[in-house]
Amino acid sequence: MKRVGILGGGQLGRMLLQAAANYPVETSVLEKDADCPAAHLCTHFNKGDITNFDDVYNFGKNLDAITIEIESVNVEALKKLETEGILVYPRPHALEIIKNKIKQKNFYKENEIPTSPFMVTAKKEELKGHLDFLPAAHKVAMGGYDGRGVQLLKTSQDINNGFDEEAVLEKLVNIKKEISIIVAMDNEGKTAVYPPVEMIFNQTLNLLEYQLCPAHLGEKTLWKAEAIALAVVKNLQSAGIFAVELFVDIDDKVLVNETAPRVHNSGHHTIEAAFSSQFDMLWRIILGYPLGLTKPIMSSAMVNLIGEENYKGEAVYQNLNETLQIENVFVHIYGKKETRPGRKMGHVTILSNERQQLIHVAGKVKHLLKVISK
Amino acid sequence: MKRVGILGGGQLGRMLLQAAANYPVETSVLEKDADCPAAHLCTHFNKGDITNFDDVYNFGKNLDAITIEIESVNVEALKKLETEGILVYPRPHALEIIKNKIKQKNFYKENEIPTSPFMVTAKKEELKGHLDFLPAAHKVAMGGYDGRGVQLLKTSQDINNGFDEEAVLEKLVNIKKEISIIVAMDNEGKTAVYPPVEMIFNQTLNLLEYQLCPAHLGEKTLWKAEAIALAVVKNLQSAGIFAVELFVDIDDKVLVNETAPRVHNSGHHTIEAAFSSQFDMLWRIILGYPLGLTKPIMSSAMVNLIGEENYKGEAVYQNLNETLQIENVFVHIYGKKETRPGRKMGHVTILSNERQQLIHVAGKVKHLLKVISK
Repeated sequence: MKRVGILGGGQLGRMLLQAAANYPVETSVLEKDADCPAAHLCTHFNKGDITNFDDVYNFGKNLDAITIEIESVNVEALKKLETEGILVYPRPHALEIIKNKIKQKNFYKENEIPTSPFMVTAKKEELKGHLDFLPAAHKVAMGGYDGRGVQLLKTSQDINNGFDEEAVLEKLVNIKKEISIIVAMDNEGKTAVYPPVEMIFNQTLNLLEYQLCPAHLGEKTLWKAEAIALAVVKNLQSAGIFAVELFVDIDDKVLVNETAPRVHNSGHHTIEAAFSSQFDMLWRIILGYPLGLTKPIMSSAMVNLIGEENYKGEAVYQNLNETLQIENVFVHIYGKKETRPGRKMGHVTILSNERQQLIHVAGKVKHLLKVISK
Repeated sequence: MKRVGILGGGQLGRMLLQAAANYPVETSVLEKDADCPAAHLCTHFNKGDITNFDDVYNFGKNLDAITIEIESVNVEALKKLETEGILVYPRPHALEIIKNKIKQKNFYKENEIPTSPFMVTAKKEELKGHLDFLPAAHKVAMGGYDGRGVQLLKTSQDINNGFDEEAVLEKLVNIKKEISIIVAMDNEGKTAVYPPVEMIFNQTLNLLEYQLCPAHLGEKTLWKAEAIALAVVKNLQSAGIFAVELFVDIDDKVLVNETAPRVHNSGHHTIEAAFSSQFDMLWRIILGYPLGLTKPIMSSAMVNLIGEENYKGEAVYQNLNETLQIENVFVHIYGKKETRPGRKMGHVTILSNERQQLIHVAGKVKHLLKVISK
């Protein structure tokens, strides 16, 4: 049986392990928190720091393959493991490009992959010289995650919110739609592309409300988006699962926003809605099996279950019973003991071939199911 | 978080735990073999004997609820746990009826549930007095499982194969079809019935080739079958998941063959083919959530993956790659290290709304994928 390790023990690790139990594989998880969502679903749990060279190297050296569920891992250790013959998904050179927003933007530019115009800044002061580039998003090069390390600079007034460290200043796109495409690439370079997912935002709060799959796109836009997503992954030259997040602007131009070199929140619906889920697909790649089928079984919506504002402590899932009463929902609770504002605590997938039904139920779930604390 | 224990750590436990990871629940498994399929997917693994009173009682006494994945457990301990307020699925009195083939047949008779005529024997000698009852199946009252403890007595010549212990002699049914119906009952007595599954046998070898869902049945036969399956579960007066195995005879009479008071092999297709799988459904019942939807997402076939004759030792899955190349298959390998003839090593589910495609692919998988040893 192949021995495969996962760096990180969050919900992505948990769902990877649920899928792993369909295949002959011995799994290990490296994570600091012994009570994390993935801790009790692996063959071996190893307590350790995924950002520490020795911890990652010692964890990986006796494995056949290793993968990640979060980008903030020690890449140097992964490089050493790769030179010693351990298969790493994604490959460390690709992870290094993605981890650094400056390198990532330069990668798109060098490979002629459409992305919004950008410039690199090292100090907050420099922003004063780029006022004509606003409105723009200022993003720290390293360590940003889930909205942290990003500031919207609309006018010169906002410049003080910029970062006094290496960062990219990205010109704001006039967005019509935000979509995401999950791409799988195996060890031989064969690829499989999942149908695009469309993000639906709450216009008032500017927060993701839910996502729909497949996205509503014109045929040409769809082709462009798929071609761009494929180009990203082929140029990264790494096997694995990749989530390419794209903007469609008001002129129907398609631009890459950013790429995640791993299973991704925007692919959760594939557990029930695709013949091969993103998690199943990654195991197929790691274990050397043929790629699975990305075709939808049914159209779907997905609602993230986020810790409510002003609640911190032992998690309570308000109206879980009412939600489970809806016939075509699939609830995934990640088993995190503590909730806090904005924390991803679970998700709900809805299956239906009626788009209006998906929208109706997604809205209902969004307003019904809340994570609060005791 | 509720603490729920499972007696037994085989593949049914494994699949229960894969489904459990969608809900907030703390899981425990009791099993002798620390390397069993369920060992690494639970919050707490407890090494112990599920047939031993103390082991079961001590395992269960600090839990909120307890369930089984095999019938051969210590029922006395479960009874004591039930009196102490621990919820048991199925309830011990129902398990006691099912575990003993004599009690089970009497239960059907007393509740006017159609089943084949039978008589009870205590010694092999008695069989001589019942030659006019042949052809019949002789089944030991206690401990039979997966074909063990059953002898077909066609003529007086076969009588010597009968059992010299408490057993039932069941008149052979002139079978047209064998079907199975999974029924769920919650704590309030609400029920949900899955569409019947049809067993397809290899006529030459008389072995289960694959199963199809939904079964091809006339409308009246379907109604009868569903009504009988429901009557079994309602009369057992226990919440839980039940698999009612039925014969349809050449006159379209429907007879109960036997009942399993737990998740069952004939319900494996529900993982992908139903909105709520049998495993998901049991968690909904145990955790006090509403029952799920038993409606099929798509029609399905299911092929068991059985250890080949003449192979014993470390398992090898021949043609697994070729099988995974088929677009609409879902492979489940149970992670058992050792194969032996007849051992259940995994299963494959096939989804398609074309019955001919299901039959075609099921046959292909059956002849392609083999479990041998190194």
